[in-house]
Amino acid sequence: MDATLHTMDGHKRPYAGYQASNFLWDVSDDGKVATITLNRPERKNPLTFDSYAELRDLFRGLVYASDIKCVVVVGAGANFCSGGDVHEIIGPLTRMSMPELLDFTRMTGDLVKAMRACPQPVVAAVDGICAGAGAMIALASDMRIGTPQARTAFLFTRVGLAGADMGACTLLPRMIGQGRASELLYTGRAMTADEGLAWGFFNSLQPSASVLGAAQELARQLADGPSFAHSMTKKLLHQEWNMGVDEAIEAEAQAQAICMQTKDFRRAYDAFVAKQKPVFEGD
Amino acid sequence: MDATLHTMDGHKRPYAGYQASNFLWDVSDDGKVATITLNRPERKNPLTFDSYAELRDLFRGLVYASDIKCVVVVGAGANFCSGGDVHEIIGPLTRMSMPELLDFTRMTGDLVKAMRACPQPVVAAVDGICAGAGAMIALASDMRIGTPQARTAFLFTRVGLAGADMGACTLLPRMIGQGRASELLYTGRAMTADEGLAWGFFNSLQPSASVLGAAQELARQLADGPSFAHSMTKKLLHQEWNMGVDEAIEAEAQAQAICMQTKDFRRAYDAFVAKQKPVFEGD
Amino acid sequence: MDATLHTMDGHKRPYAGYQASNFLWDVSDDGKVATITLNRPERKNPLTFDSYAELRDLFRGLVYASDIKCVVVVGAGANFCSGGDVHEIIGPLTRMSMPELLDFTRMTGDLVKAMRACPQPVVAAVDGICAGAGAMIALASDMRIGTPQARTAFLFTRVGLAGADMGACTLLPRMIGQGRASELLYTGRAMTADEGLAWGFFNSLQPSASVLGAAQELARQLADGPSFAHSMTKKLLHQEWNMGVDEAIEAEAQAQAICMQTKDFRRAYDAFVAKQKPVFEGD
Repeated sequence: MDATLHTMDGHKRPYAGYQASNFLWDVSDDGKVATITLNRPERKNPLTFDSYAELRDLFRGLVYASDIKCVVVVGAGANFCSGGDVHEIIGPLTRMSMPELLDFTRMTGDLVKAMRACPQPVVAAVDGICAGAGAMIALASDMRIGTPQARTAFLFTRVGLAGADMGACTLLPRMIGQGRASELLYTGRAMTADEGLAWGFFNSLQPSASVLGAAQELARQLADGPSFAHSMTKKLLHQEWNMGVDEAIEAEAQAQAICMQTKDFRRAYDAFVAKQKPVFEGD
Repeated sequence: MDATLHTMDGHKRPYAGYQASNFLWDVSDDGKVATITLNRPERKNPLTFDSYAELRDLFRGLVYASDIKCVVVVGAGANFCSGGDVHEIIGPLTRMSMPELLDFTRMTGDLVKAMRACPQPVVAAVDGICAGAGAMIALASDMRIGTPQARTAFLFTRVGLAGADMGACTLLPRMIGQGRASELLYTGRAMTADEGLAWGFFNSLQPSASVLGAAQELARQLADGPSFAHSMTKKLLHQEWNMGVDEAIEAEAQAQAICMQTKDFRRAYDAFVAKQKPVFEGD
Repeated sequence: MDATLHTMDGHKRPYAGYQASNFLWDVSDDGKVATITLNRPERKNPLTFDSYAELRDLFRGLVYASDIKCVVVVGAGANFCSGGDVHEIIGPLTRMSMPELLDFTRMTGDLVKAMRACPQPVVAAVDGICAGAGAMIALASDMRIGTPQARTAFLFTRVGLAGADMGACTLLPRMIGQGRASELLYTGRAMTADEGLAWGFFNSLQPSASVLGAAQELARQLADGPSFAHSMTKKLLHQEWNMGVDEAIEAEAQAQAICMQTKDFRRAYDAFVAKQKPVFEGD
């Protein structure tokens, strides 16, 4: 038993000190809120083979983070992300064999899988250009705060490809409705910020100067909440994607019963009885 | 054969005279429209172990009601429902074993299952506070009429729990979109009435004084319609939750063929030919 | 191998010269954009047994069309379609046996299946009355452009039937949300044009005089785009209807890898490098 417990402790580790190579990684003083900044502003923060792979590995690793409770994703310089770099990604893809192509499309899909599988809610702060794989990173986040300048384009069709990329055909219809998603995926046109807000893509719009702050404030609120319970909410939102209603209800009965044995549940009750504000610790 | 038919008759019974213990139960003179009033207005109509169980049993029983064609749910005193009572439910839960906790979460889930499985469409009239399990009762209804004062909060996270409760993670995203649902479930914040209308949670907003009347009028319209066909609509909306499009189409081909052998279908045609308004009888 | 290739060529044929019996069929000069006009304007373009069957067979055939890349559906005379003709369809249905009824409901469902299975995106131009099976044809299209006069009613309940018809209970909730869809399907009331736009049923509204032109312009844009990739978008939107997120991502990884071996993908890249606008050919 001790050995097992030791193993359970040992397989987790802090990510506050993670050294990122292909983007910036900043963690709040208490280690709970991490901010990923896509940081090639002169090119509107495109993705490369290396940044895809590192993001995938990082989100996979966050399952085992002992500190991070919420993640913010933002782009440097008033743009979110211009998607896969034309020279560094599209060019090479035109010369690849089928197995190599599938390696690539699976890697990009694995990034979305990892973002949906990590226990931390992910908040995207979206200003300016948000295109292609960049739009998919925003879509794969749990919540999105935009700016009036945000232009979100699932523009795969513009480079001769299908709108079916990284899960767009399953994620976008559930976010904004099947008809609107169909138009965006077939035409590749940019969704304006106002459309994004009206259609439920953005949770709110903020001025460019404060969008990162607003995303970090929301992340802070979640990080200071019952973060184990939040991770269960995230897991169930994912698991129930194609369950029937009755099966989903049973899944939630089990999940919530687990959460009822956390200390946070008792903390909330004790605080209520004492007419105080609960202090959650995520366990 | 006769014995079977007798059994078929015998297993149905009227619910107009049902004696409710934990809420009010009023039935229209013709026995078709029932109104459930959550009735502890001084506490904003919280749920208790007993009221959960009775609601579950009542909705389960309504499958066999020979009279009731539509159900309205409302709260007394300008609030819908404040959810599980902190003292009578949350307190005891903090002291339960895992099997006991699962008994509870399954019972609450069973209420939603029963609301989705009964043949009667359910219309919620939502004023004031609509929180926690109360918000889930509204969400599990087929339609919702709100008031400008309605404040709907899936606030499980505020008591240290997951947003995954009674099917919230499957029902809410399909009602208002995945992104908005995620925000409400992670943060527990109240959805305003205007948001609820714009997002499709509420079918309409009515003044506080007339919301119950509006809900009952809608229920009356459905009760006077082809109620067998309505029950089939409800069943298929449920069954198709996680079917493919082609399978759903076959399911509807069978369901609609059944409805085409009802007397109501012929009544509608005969009335049309006679240039009259059809009188449906639900068979 | 040659024999196989010959067969592959041979099983495709042009549809520009298709001779329609129950509606109009017009094809653009380049053979890419087809327009179906429901054409009994004096009756608001009702469907008959024959027009259902011919539409079904046509959309099934379009899988093998060598020319058509996008389809527009419109009604003659400022109405879209009034649904199944009361005299020619409803009357006979009231006298049919169960096997005959199922033959009919399966045939109507097969039209929707065929519209979702053909590789061409379908754009509906919806003016005036859009009711019953007509509303389902609009709903089964990939995109919808309406007019301020469009009145869309899933009015099956008005003739004593269930809202479960031709896939309505699976398609409509994903288009406009579960709560709004429930109201429309239970009550049969008409959705106004403004509601249709706000709820995501319509992609845009255009004046009556220009709605067909707008639909054909959108169809032209898609037909001149990477039409093989568009057909993959359509297929994946369909396939992923009830997949989990992870399975959908793998399906898209495979689909997009296929698209990356098309000439259109290379054309787009070459055009980008040459700072030109790509000319797609659909292969």
